[in-house]
Amino acid sequence: MAEFDFNAYWKEKLEIVNRALERFLPEDAEGPEILVRAMRYTLFAGGKRLRPLLAIIGYELSGGKDLEGELLPVACGIEMIHTFSLIHDDLPAMDNDDFRRGKPTNHRVFGEAIAILAGDALFSHAFHTIVQSHVPPDRLVMVLREITDAIGLDGMLGGQVADVTGEKKPPSEEIVEYIHSRKTGKFIRASLKVGGIAAGASTETVKLFHSVGEKIGLTFQIVDDILDEIGEKDRLGKSVGKDRESGKQTYVRVFGLEEAKKKARILADSAISEVEDFFGKEKGKPLISLIKFIVERNY
Amino acid sequence: MAEFDFNAYWKEKLEIVNRALERFLPEDAEGPEILVRAMRYTLFAGGKRLRPLLAIIGYELSGGKDLEGELLPVACGIEMIHTFSLIHDDLPAMDNDDFRRGKPTNHRVFGEAIAILAGDALFSHAFHTIVQSHVPPDRLVMVLREITDAIGLDGMLGGQVADVTGEKKPPSEEIVEYIHSRKTGKFIRASLKVGGIAAGASTETVKLFHSVGEKIGLTFQIVDDILDEIGEKDRLGKSVGKDRESGKQTYVRVFGLEEAKKKARILADSAISEVEDFFGKEKGKPLISLIKFIVERNY
Repeated sequence: MAEFDFNAYWKEKLEIVNRALERFLPEDAEGPEILVRAMRYTLFAGGKRLRPLLAIIGYELSGGKDLEGELLPVACGIEMIHTFSLIHDDLPAMDNDDFRRGKPTNHRVFGEAIAILAGDALFSHAFHTIVQSHVPPDRLVMVLREITDAIGLDGMLGGQVADVTGEKKPPSEEIVEYIHSRKTGKFIRASLKVGGIAAGASTETVKLFHSVGEKIGLTFQIVDDILDEIGEKDRLGKSVGKDRESGKQTYVRVFGLEEAKKKARILADSAISEVEDFFGKEKGKPLISLIKFIVERNY
Repeated sequence: MAEFDFNAYWKEKLEIVNRALERFLPEDAEGPEILVRAMRYTLFAGGKRLRPLLAIIGYELSGGKDLEGELLPVACGIEMIHTFSLIHDDLPAMDNDDFRRGKPTNHRVFGEAIAILAGDALFSHAFHTIVQSHVPPDRLVMVLREITDAIGLDGMLGGQVADVTGEKKPPSEEIVEYIHSRKTGKFIRASLKVGGIAAGASTETVKLFHSVGEKIGLTFQIVDDILDEIGEKDRLGKSVGKDRESGKQTYVRVFGLEEAKKKARILADSAISEVEDFFGKEKGKPLISLIKFIVERNY
């Protein structure tokens, strides 16, 4: 059997997602032109589309057949929510970041008022896009429950609050695990899970995605912390060392660099064997390759 | 037949809504304590609950029977979205308001970072709450389509962008109508409509709510502009004359005070006769009384 070419696979899916995003938020979308421009500026700033990819993999592993009609509105909504969170996280009142994905941040280009509203509008447009999906309504409501649980008070936004308020506190295992599981972990996990839910996956499959998705989310965030410590600005497209300087809670600060690397490796290996055991090495290839990428990435 | 006591009716519904909001966002909700406190601060700052009331009236006029299970999650979600928009509109980068409903604005109490995140979290929690509704999934998806259409790019958030960017432009009928129909009109209209949709109202009923809701939304906003001009700060609980001073586009600036009053009266009368023709004077009482309140209110 031919070698599985993960780069080609990802590139293909990335183009599918980008074309769909273009369709769901075109240049001539209704609404004030400046708002559409600000939303598109960060949405099309060259993201890896990791969350939509997870949703697509979850959907295809569960036998989903209508990527265009059923899954892409959900996957694109997820990417819009992610982009909203980036715009707001970068604001002067939050992390006060000047660069994101190698470009000036949204508020540096459009000003604070429009940046806040562009984030809000991406958030709103995400739900507007998700409810265009042809997924049967009962499943779509389950998808929405999963997503809103992952991003809310006890999810992404709660994690961001803990992140902002945690800067003044001494490094703590408890705090860093709370922040990371909430701020990134739950939403990454949800991305994989909703792919399965949208395809009508069995309870066992959704449970597997829950467990594997959690490990992927944590691995992703630990590697993020490591890259903030040792990564290169040019590759990452954002400032490095900033988390350390601002006193943020990170795995590297709490556990040290070597221990953090080991943790990421163990989590990734455990996620990979779960996938192999459930789907087999062949069928599981896309997800296994993605996990390998996440733990080995240097950008 | 006994006189219909609208004040008692409203008070009863307002208490039902407040109790439900308390249940959907209790003090000990999961998530960082400071975030929950900031969200609740503005959510329970004494709003009139106009939008939930419209949803309840639409639901009951359409024969809906399960207010608790079906409608209140939707009505409370709507109020959370409204509250989110107030918190963000008040931010220093936007209208920079110090008072709202007679109390210091959210960012004055909790700081800008938490205020932005409290708004975001109310927005997210709104959808989380709406998808708890027992409305059949196909209707719930229709409810979500209506709401996300009303608040997005070509709705509330688009209107807010036009409002922020319109401050520098000369008063214009076209701009003021765009801003008002988007920023407040569509969401007020949607509140009434989703009440009907949730109850499985006929197409004719939903059409009526669309037309009446549009008139109510415009009336509400014109009266808001009039009150900004001639209202009393103590009654309104917010600064007056601020829109005029900041050069905002208002009906009063474009049409003059007398013409604005006349417009509001004509719109309200037209909405009232539509309701009377469709439901009859007796059944239509709650909605008719609410429209009268909106056009006659001085706070």
